[in-house]
Amino acid sequence: MSPGGGADRILDRALAGRVMTAADAAAQIRPGDTVGFSGFTGAGYPKAVPGALAERMTAAHDRGEDFRIQAWSGASTAPDLDGVLAAAHGLSKRIPYQSDPVLRRQINDGEVEYVDAHLSHTAQHSWFGFYGPLDAAVIEVAAILPHGLLVPSSSVGNNKTWLEHADRVVLEVNSWQPREFEGFHDVYYGTRLPPHRAPIQLTSPMQRIGDPYLRVDPDRVVAVVETNAPDRNSPLAPLDDHSRAMADLLVDFLRHEVRHDRMPASLLPLQSGVGNVANAVMAGLLESEFEGLTSYTETIQDGLLDLLDAGKLTGVSATSFGLSPDGVRRFNASVNDYKGRILLRSQEISNHPEVVRRLGLIAINGMIEADIYGNVNSTHVAGSAIMNGIGGSGDFARNAYLNFFVSPSTAKDGAISAIVPFASHIDHTEHDVQVLVTEQGLADLRGLSPRARARRIIDRCAHPDFRDRLEDYFERAQKAHPHALHTPHLLDEALGWHRSLLETGRM
Amino acid sequence: MSPGGGADRILDRALAGRVMTAADAAAQIRPGDTVGFSGFTGAGYPKAVPGALAERMTAAHDRGEDFRIQAWSGASTAPDLDGVLAAAHGLSKRIPYQSDPVLRRQINDGEVEYVDAHLSHTAQHSWFGFYGPLDAAVIEVAAILPHGLLVPSSSVGNNKTWLEHADRVVLEVNSWQPREFEGFHDVYYGTRLPPHRAPIQLTSPMQRIGDPYLRVDPDRVVAVVETNAPDRNSPLAPLDDHSRAMADLLVDFLRHEVRHDRMPASLLPLQSGVGNVANAVMAGLLESEFEGLTSYTETIQDGLLDLLDAGKLTGVSATSFGLSPDGVRRFNASVNDYKGRILLRSQEISNHPEVVRRLGLIAINGMIEADIYGNVNSTHVAGSAIMNGIGGSGDFARNAYLNFFVSPSTAKDGAISAIVPFASHIDHTEHDVQVLVTEQGLADLRGLSPRARARRIIDRCAHPDFRDRLEDYFERAQKAHPHALHTPHLLDEALGWHRSLLETGRM
Repeated sequence: MSPGGGADRILDRALAGRVMTAADAAAQIRPGDTVGFSGFTGAGYPKAVPGALAERMTAAHDRGEDFRIQAWSGASTAPDLDGVLAAAHGLSKRIPYQSDPVLRRQINDGEVEYVDAHLSHTAQHSWFGFYGPLDAAVIEVAAILPHGLLVPSSSVGNNKTWLEHADRVVLEVNSWQPREFEGFHDVYYGTRLPPHRAPIQLTSPMQRIGDPYLRVDPDRVVAVVETNAPDRNSPLAPLDDHSRAMADLLVDFLRHEVRHDRMPASLLPLQSGVGNVANAVMAGLLESEFEGLTSYTETIQDGLLDLLDAGKLTGVSATSFGLSPDGVRRFNASVNDYKGRILLRSQEISNHPEVVRRLGLIAINGMIEADIYGNVNSTHVAGSAIMNGIGGSGDFARNAYLNFFVSPSTAKDGAISAIVPFASHIDHTEHDVQVLVTEQGLADLRGLSPRARARRIIDRCAHPDFRDRLEDYFERAQKAHPHALHTPHLLDEALGWHRSLLETGRM
Repeated sequence: MSPGGGADRILDRALAGRVMTAADAAAQIRPGDTVGFSGFTGAGYPKAVPGALAERMTAAHDRGEDFRIQAWSGASTAPDLDGVLAAAHGLSKRIPYQSDPVLRRQINDGEVEYVDAHLSHTAQHSWFGFYGPLDAAVIEVAAILPHGLLVPSSSVGNNKTWLEHADRVVLEVNSWQPREFEGFHDVYYGTRLPPHRAPIQLTSPMQRIGDPYLRVDPDRVVAVVETNAPDRNSPLAPLDDHSRAMADLLVDFLRHEVRHDRMPASLLPLQSGVGNVANAVMAGLLESEFEGLTSYTETIQDGLLDLLDAGKLTGVSATSFGLSPDGVRRFNASVNDYKGRILLRSQEISNHPEVVRRLGLIAINGMIEADIYGNVNSTHVAGSAIMNGIGGSGDFARNAYLNFFVSPSTAKDGAISAIVPFASHIDHTEHDVQVLVTEQGLADLRGLSPRARARRIIDRCAHPDFRDRLEDYFERAQKAHPHALHTPHLLDEALGWHRSLLETGRM
């Protein structure tokens, strides 16, 4: 075997015969192709073929030829995938999520078309034929077993769909990923197209309803590439005071809900978006009295590992890892201890509205800004420029038992307020937002009319530097429209804070 | 029995002993109470007690006493309920939907708090305790059977929840409603609170998963009132050219989807919002070649009855009727012929994300406006004033197989464009809107980036009187922000069309 490979990684003779270099594998992808890549939150993306493909693209461009592809993924990937393909000017369209700085710039420069979609929708919209045909798939796995069975790696994402849907399949076998991943996955093969769909019989976060393996038709596997390379694994920022304050507010609110019989003592399954606040909330729960917790989420961050290690979390279901380098070391050192307590599923199941609503999740997601009436912007800066994308936040927030949107009350050293008169882009509407949290406080919006929401949001969540101006806006809007008092706005000022941001760098 | 009653309407002896006048029954409702009313789209609301309650409120107000209540419902009711309570200044808060002109004015005048919520969410948020306790319920039924079994009337709405949740129950037995309604309902009693929820085992629109009856604890029934009064039953406007044009575009697009194998030949279950366009679509389907259709929707309008009568629709599941007076006459004349082909369910089931997604609905809903990027406003006029509410449109659109939002391209004799640079309120985000239809054309937005959506919406859906200005806005927005080209906006002009509307009456 080649360096980094291992005798236990490719157990299918026919597919072992298709091992080739990344460069040869990349030659299977043609200009204009639509390619489905593995990868979710910087885990389980292919490590070698995208780079080799980028080299072919650059060479083609140097020859004056066009070579761009459409790239579909699970969610965000890494510089080794989105980064290199964007740097090679090789992407024409990207679906359904990204967070790469080079790619983001190209989207905002108008070079790459980006379809920012709910992560639970991608697989079905692909199957429905709404996105067109899928020419190729490039999927990282931990091992290839006989008969087309694949041990998934550190994310599942949309891999099941890409493997079934693509004409040509390239597999990357990454021996950096623990071989012990076998048994960590639950891949549901019960999906059908309407009108033939059946209920998803999942009633608790750790229940298995599928197979531990992905399946592939071996005849469609055109290349196998061996790699030995780590996932992206960004280091965690240390917990700052603001994150800690938001976490304390949120955990205290959960306590309050338990006291009022609106939540079981062991809470309900936790979903938390990626980032420091989510990790801080997990740290807050670690220090709390809560026991017997569960999690049904997208991504396993270090905070969830801490809760598992402490015995406070009985199990976590997700679609990917999103650990720090330290978290990876801890996981790899005790991988067998985590078996049965961690399950990775397809993202259409981890984020499925049916399952999210049934399980009754506590959904905790970040935001860029909220307006005084509780409409949330998760994706855009000042209305026009995309940051990352909506990801799974809509799947979870809309269908959760209880949802939280969290953000520090200001950004850029106080130049920008996260609470604004009118959100410059709306990803979560007033109908979908229940609790807002900043380091200033927590606004419980359940059962409130828009004006009552505004009073509470301004009072509890806005930074003192902006509170008076928000109150002034709200008061003047009410005076200006005495017969339009449901959601009063001053249309000439509503987006003024964002105009000021663009013109002066401050709101 | 009293006039309008009938020996077959109240078969429970104990409850027959609690028959009283509407005035006496209304005395069971106290100032400050929260009251759950039956009623959905002008069907199945109580006809007598609200008026009697309004008289008590007016009398109290004349004495200088406060007498207001919170009112929860299924959806919209009628002048006999929302209208009289609002006219008596007897409402402090209203959840989750309304369409009454008097009440709307009071909401926009700031007198009544209105919580405009997804219709699938109300029952569960009430059970979760998010809206506080429910003091009383006033529910119309078609008959009272022994042992607390109730034959529902022309809507089910949230009646199951109000009957279970309220401390005191007032029943109105309306002998105007066909006694033959027995057997037309399927009330699901399998709902639980998380973490005890199970899959809803519904896999086809006409499947029965519940009981034909509502249940009530007889001990909590404090009054029974006999009535004989028709539902609201607004006459239908004649089909106009614009509705017909939109219907033709939509039906033709369904044909196109079938041809491209993206839809079965008998389509998928149809959901259509209330109004003339929805009726026109049904008329378009009536004249089409489609056969074996099904419907899983909120409200049964005349167009669905026509399709049933023609044998083109095999069955329809909804939560209420919404027929014209002529439609009611037709239904009542042949009520037994419709048995087994019409089922009314609780709105948490008719609108349930789990079921909507599983069945793969074709969702057709109206809108007030859409912006050039496909964000849809369903609720507000010029940002501040509420029109009706989001209703079930979010439940259906987000989870449908395919969704359509339809509106004439202009309103008020051409003074207002339904396509605007920036929606003045957003109820359905870019992530949730697939196809826009005006009488000008149809814009299929699936798989498009925001700028590609803008080009298509302006080109296909905008009225020619506004098209050049929209194109100009879009072009200048792109020039102004060469590095923010994902969703380019001119923040100083984005809401300018609505400003102009408020100032001049024209956009």
